Amino acid sequence: MNNNQQSFLPLLYLAWSDDLLTQKEHEIIRGFISSQSWLSDSSKSELLSKLDVSAPPSREELAAWKTTIHSELVKNPELRSLFSLSLALSGNSDGFANARNEFVQLENELGILGEEILLSFRTGENTLTAKHDTVHGFDIEKLTRLLEGDESDIIKKVKAVITRRDFAYETSTDVDVYREKVLEWCKILADENLGNMAFPTEFGGGGNMRDYFAIMETLSYHDLSLVIKFGVQFGLWGMSVYFLGTQKHHEEYLQKIGSLELPGCFAMTEMHHGSNVKGLETTATYDHSNKTFVIKTPHKKAQKEYIGNAAKHGQMATVFAKLIIDGKDYGVNTFIVPIRNVDGTIADGVEIGDCGHKMGLNGVDNGTISFHDVVIPKENMLDRFASVNENGEFESPIPSDNRRFFTMLGTLVGGRIGIPRSALSAMKSGLTIAIKYSDQRRQFGPEGGSEVPILNYRMHQRRLLPYLAKSYALHFTLRHLTNRFLNRTEDEMQKIEALAAGMKAYTTWTVRDALQECREAIGGKGYLSENRIDALKNDTEIYTTFEGDNTVLMQLVAKNRLSVFRKEFGKLDVGGMITYVYENAKTVVSEKNPIITRRTDEAHLRDFEFHLQAFYYREKTILASAARRLKKLIDGGMDAYDAFNVAQHQMMDVANAYLERVILEQYHAFITTVSDADIKNRLVQLAQLFALSLIEGHKGWYLEDGYMESAKTKAIRKLVNQLCWDIRQDAVPLVDAFAIPQSCLGAQILTDN
Amino acid sequence: MNNNQQSFLPLLYLAWSDDLLTQKEHEIIRGFISSQSWLSDSSKSELLSKLDVSAPPSREELAAWKTTIHSELVKNPELRSLFSLSLALSGNSDGFANARNEFVQLENELGILGEEILLSFRTGENTLTAKHDTVHGFDIEKLTRLLEGDESDIIKKVKAVITRRDFAYETSTDVDVYREKVLEWCKILADENLGNMAFPTEFGGGGNMRDYFAIMETLSYHDLSLVIKFGVQFGLWGMSVYFLGTQKHHEEYLQKIGSLELPGCFAMTEMHHGSNVKGLETTATYDHSNKTFVIKTPHKKAQKEYIGNAAKHGQMATVFAKLIIDGKDYGVNTFIVPIRNVDGTIADGVEIGDCGHKMGLNGVDNGTISFHDVVIPKENMLDRFASVNENGEFESPIPSDNRRFFTMLGTLVGGRIGIPRSALSAMKSGLTIAIKYSDQRRQFGPEGGSEVPILNYRMHQRRLLPYLAKSYALHFTLRHLTNRFLNRTEDEMQKIEALAAGMKAYTTWTVRDALQECREAIGGKGYLSENRIDALKNDTEIYTTFEGDNTVLMQLVAKNRLSVFRKEFGKLDVGGMITYVYENAKTVVSEKNPIITRRTDEAHLRDFEFHLQAFYYREKTILASAARRLKKLIDGGMDAYDAFNVAQHQMMDVANAYLERVILEQYHAFITTVSDADIKNRLVQLAQLFALSLIEGHKGWYLEDGYMESAKTKAIRKLVNQLCWDIRQDAVPLVDAFAIPQSCLGAQILTDN
Ligand SMILES: Cc1cc2nc3c(=O)[nH]c(=O)nc-3n(C[C@H](O)[C@H](O)[C@H](O)COP(=O)(O)OP(=O)(O)OC[C@H]3O[C@@H](n4cnc5c(N)ncnc54)[C@H](O)[C@@H]3O)c2cc1C
Ligand SMILES: Cc1cc2nc3c(=O)[nH]c(=O)nc-3n(C[C@H](O)[C@H](O)[C@H](O)COP(=O)(O)OP(=O)(O)OC[C@H]3O[C@@H](n4cnc5c(N)ncnc54)[C@H](O)[C@@H]3O)c2cc1C
Repeated sequence: MNNNQQSFLPLLYLAWSDDLLTQKEHEIIRGFISSQSWLSDSSKSELLSKLDVSAPPSREELAAWKTTIHSELVKNPELRSLFSLSLALSGNSDGFANARNEFVQLENELGILGEEILLSFRTGENTLTAKHDTVHGFDIEKLTRLLEGDESDIIKKVKAVITRRDFAYETSTDVDVYREKVLEWCKILADENLGNMAFPTEFGGGGNMRDYFAIMETLSYHDLSLVIKFGVQFGLWGMSVYFLGTQKHHEEYLQKIGSLELPGCFAMTEMHHGSNVKGLETTATYDHSNKTFVIKTPHKKAQKEYIGNAAKHGQMATVFAKLIIDGKDYGVNTFIVPIRNVDGTIADGVEIGDCGHKMGLNGVDNGTISFHDVVIPKENMLDRFASVNENGEFESPIPSDNRRFFTMLGTLVGGRIGIPRSALSAMKSGLTIAIKYSDQRRQFGPEGGSEVPILNYRMHQRRLLPYLAKSYALHFTLRHLTNRFLNRTEDEMQKIEALAAGMKAYTTWTVRDALQECREAIGGKGYLSENRIDALKNDTEIYTTFEGDNTVLMQLVAKNRLSVFRKEFGKLDVGGMITYVYENAKTVVSEKNPIITRRTDEAHLRDFEFHLQAFYYREKTILASAARRLKKLIDGGMDAYDAFNVAQHQMMDVANAYLERVILEQYHAFITTVSDADIKNRLVQLAQLFALSLIEGHKGWYLEDGYMESAKTKAIRKLVNQLCWDIRQDAVPLVDAFAIPQSCLGAQILTDN
Repeated sequence: MNNNQQSFLPLLYLAWSDDLLTQKEHEIIRGFISSQSWLSDSSKSELLSKLDVSAPPSREELAAWKTTIHSELVKNPELRSLFSLSLALSGNSDGFANARNEFVQLENELGILGEEILLSFRTGENTLTAKHDTVHGFDIEKLTRLLEGDESDIIKKVKAVITRRDFAYETSTDVDVYREKVLEWCKILADENLGNMAFPTEFGGGGNMRDYFAIMETLSYHDLSLVIKFGVQFGLWGMSVYFLGTQKHHEEYLQKIGSLELPGCFAMTEMHHGSNVKGLETTATYDHSNKTFVIKTPHKKAQKEYIGNAAKHGQMATVFAKLIIDGKDYGVNTFIVPIRNVDGTIADGVEIGDCGHKMGLNGVDNGTISFHDVVIPKENMLDRFASVNENGEFESPIPSDNRRFFTMLGTLVGGRIGIPRSALSAMKSGLTIAIKYSDQRRQFGPEGGSEVPILNYRMHQRRLLPYLAKSYALHFTLRHLTNRFLNRTEDEMQKIEALAAGMKAYTTWTVRDALQECREAIGGKGYLSENRIDALKNDTEIYTTFEGDNTVLMQLVAKNRLSVFRKEFGKLDVGGMITYVYENAKTVVSEKNPIITRRTDEAHLRDFEFHLQAFYYREKTILASAARRLKKLIDGGMDAYDAFNVAQHQMMDVANAYLERVILEQYHAFITTVSDADIKNRLVQLAQLFALSLIEGHKGWYLEDGYMESAKTKAIRKLVNQLCWDIRQDAVPLVDAFAIPQSCLGAQILTDN
């Protein structure tokens, strides 16, 4: 080929190699060539022959073209367009140079403009994407210690147990086998005095509620059926006896519960009443003649349902039932009811069903219970908040049935701390598996270069790293919640209950989404049970429902926020509302100030004060506007019940904005206590990613409100991308700091890749 | 109690009943009472005695107060505040009337202002929320026929088969039992001539590709392992022989494949190459001396992986391998390789592993395959696109290995139509279960009224009904895609491939999210396998990964859009871009016109033209801006490969915006063909909900761009709520129109509630 002809090599090559050109487009190229007057007729016909669809060039010829083109690019690495490349190949032929406009027009028509098209000819060993690696820039063990806080000892102890050989995962799909294995594990934990950790020392317990939470959290690196079975026995069954019962119950039961000699249930939910437990229909009718209660399931739809430990192992249950004395209903109270005899047979009058196979947690024996006039002695009423006196009369320090019931439930709020802490452990496991695999797994790469770890892809970072940031933020917030709960005062209880309910919902939803992303991020490998994302995902799936359905809990949180708001603030008018929204803001004047709404410099965008202000502003504005909306609807004559329904969607936002502000604040409060500069840097970066990716997610709101302008939200998106890119290099050490035992991770892909 | 005292009943009642008041707040009320000079000392002390925490009123007393308050409200239903209620109870005492300001101040402090607080005293039988019911406003069967289109006959036939008794769901958790059952089902379907529907009639097939898709779709109301096993056998294995092979292969295999006499596999994926199949490492080395190929797995990480039908039943496989002739690599080609002997033993040189238990689809026997120098005759090369000639030389009409490979893959695009259609069926099943249950399930309700169907709660509507709208929109778009595919021309192929890839990704992600919401929306019931959300969710989970990972596919779609864009548009400058963005817009002038950006009247917001303009505008703006961004990065000296990585996130948006526009347009195109007014109304409402809830989801983008102002996005949110509320009454008939056989739904909750 002569030079003039050579200038067409890239076009010819693209016509045959590139999968974007259609046959019609071949015609366009043919037309172009034919019209070039500076080409000799023989050149034209040779070139046209190379475009004949019925006689394509040979594979070898194509390869030869590519080699020629490639050498030209190596010689002239500055070439940036198809035209300049072609021109160079023509030896800068004048004829070709003159055809520039036409050629560019052709490029346009074919849609092959830009340097990007040169990709197919370049070899790309030196791309930024390929070079981005894991670095080791901080002391991992130190960070682990920070995560563990005061709990290091108990965490270590639990890890030592669950990494023992007898804790190898059960892989049988036979539900019975799995259930027995989980019971066996629970017994080992009881023997290690881990189950009774929160019970008073006088009943053989550890008297340490804080450690109990750490046990739940650490166990959750292992099998989650185990965690839930453990939680049902020691948390729900045990704590209900402890918190709802009195000395006589503690003496009789706590030791046996803590040692697992007496497996039991927490039987609240009924078929027709799940979220709305106030409406439970099981009755406990007092018979003063022989000082007994008769426990009765009035109809099939009132049977106890989903009850953990019921289908197989439970011998007793704390049963929630309406107390009836002399035909009068005294609201829901709790009673200890035997459901199985010591030999494992079912007690008289008790009917038990099996919930059967579930989406997950198949190591837990959930079942249904119906009571057909089961008689229990008077002492079996858990009588801390209400009792029947010697004369057979009802007595209670809390006159309102409603309030008494919620006070009872309030004592069980610990479950709403244990569950999110357990869920977060599962999320950490998922992230560890997904991030470590993605750091190794290579797929695609620059033409001619080697394949690239998938964690180097921007989308992959986007999918996983904001969750990594969230896991850190949630970790420290749940620790804060635990502390508040452990040091609670009466007056704070409602706020703590609301925070616990909210953190339960927020965390478990986050975990659900994070594990979903982990599954997909590792492709087909995530679908194989051997890599455990399956179990993590399906076992935690129900965390969004049990211990209170998340949607219902969020409404509760919102109602609590509204009531706090009213107490703090009272009457609503526009001036007042503005005051309210800004009252805590340090930078009162600068809010909604055009300079701030548009500020896009990195220092500002990374600034924690900016984040906190933005979160507070959102929280308060949404809250005040929900309050205003409700008032307006009701003032307009709508029934208040309907008004709350109309505003439900907004109520979700109220709760969400509150929780995110608390999480940001608490995570940051922790960071300020960190002295190690390397670690602090990473935690700060994670906090920035956490805050900015949330703001990005809410940008619709911020723009709608006018708190930010579009230049700013765009700058935030860019910075989120940048933070993901930067944090990618620390991602592996950051999950290593979770220090989850390899045997617990139990993912095949981490060992054989 | 005298009148003056009675005025305090509501306060007293709230103090004891309401769970929002703390003991400190009791003190506040005590202080207030003490300071009221118009109360006699004896009144005061009686009232104060009722606030003594150590001597709470009895339960009976509290009930009596409530009765008194309640009667007052019944007498004066217009009472709207705690003060006016209290005043009425005081018999309009002057003293109390004068204390108004102080009382309101007290309300503020306690945060108990507003009518809402009166809820606790009202009975609410007449709330709007409680009264909202299912209506039957259109002909369900007629809508079913519209959904079925021309496919009614085949759908009916498939339904008749899968509702037979031998298609009762397998409940064993034993993977082997399940696999055998699925194979048995497949055999029945083969016997019914459903498997070979798309094969040419000359080989015993039905010659009807359209019906084949309808079969996949309808089968997907039943077990999804069955669908995938069926798809592997007849779709992947069968179609690869059909489309990649030539006459000799068709004659030899198609009849046996269609009858399931010859179960086979589609063996493309390798351990180290999943998404990046271009990099496959298995080799097929040609030996001209005896005209055979030697198939070899060069190392462990190159073994075929996840291959359906491999672990148990497959006898042959279409193997993707690099063809090597005389030491030279001719790119990936396909070969038929026997992997098992007729007696079921494994063929010599073949090594098979079992992928074991998976998150779902456990009725499919996925396995790994390694080849240790397995020799196959020359005829086993599927030689439609490339062959080895009599002289042992490579021949192909497509010189580029790359292009040849993608041409081969392109013939298999049918899978990317079958998969989303199958997924959508699963979504319809999930929605049917969730919506019908939610219409029946009652939980909570107005004080004193009966409990309310959960589907009447606004959040519940928000969670489910936009998915119902999406399911209709996707249904008609997938039908459109099928038609385009069936009537394809060569020139259109790239667009169709891109659309199929995109619809596969968009649909399967939607299905994933919808089923997640269905699970949660039905609470604990969704977790029990007996209600089948478990299977639907876990089986479709992998749909986002196989037949092409969604994230990877979306990048493909975006690249195709960029190339189309360049062809249509060429050079990029600001003026040009604006022209591009507006070119198809009918209302060119009015875009970004302040009157439009702010228009919030319902007629406008419900107008399809507005929706379509908004979708087009988003699509084009995002596409043009992605193109500009890439150009800018590359012009700035960035390697093109890196530039594409930097823009990955934006590329996802490019694909998303394109797909959503197509879906809206196609759904609407269908609606215009509907004549029945009742049905049309519903479809239009669904289309409005579909369009507006997507716009709401993208409001951040629209605001950022300035295409809408906040008044408009807020009005849209309101209208979405309203549409959900309205559609709720049609929701049950709308899922009934899917006409999914009850036995296929197989959800216990639909039969025993
Ligand atoms: C595996 C498992 C183990 C369990 N273990 C136990 C146990 O040991 N002991 C025990 O007592 N219970 C147990 N439960 C029961 C569990 O606590 C309940 O499932 C849970 O409280 C939710 O109740 P539900 O399932 O009846 O859902 P429902 O209350 O019927 O809720 C269904 C849906 O309706 C929505 N909804 C309800 N009310 C409203 C409203 N007002 N506004 C908007 N939306 C609303 C919810 O958001 C939810 O999506 C268990 C459940 C499971 C699945
Ligand atoms: C149940 C099941 C059945 C199957 N059946 C068959 C079969 O019968 N025959 C067969 O041949 N195959 C089969 N497969 C394989 C399936 O097609 C692959 O799993 C799929 O192609 C994805 O490949 P991968 O799993 O290796 O994921 P990978 O390619 O490793 O992808 C992992 C992750 O990396 C991300 N990623 C990859 N590249 C990029 C990029 N450039 N930019 C951004 N992100 C990126 C992806 O989004 C993904 O999240 C099956 C798989 C499963 C699980």
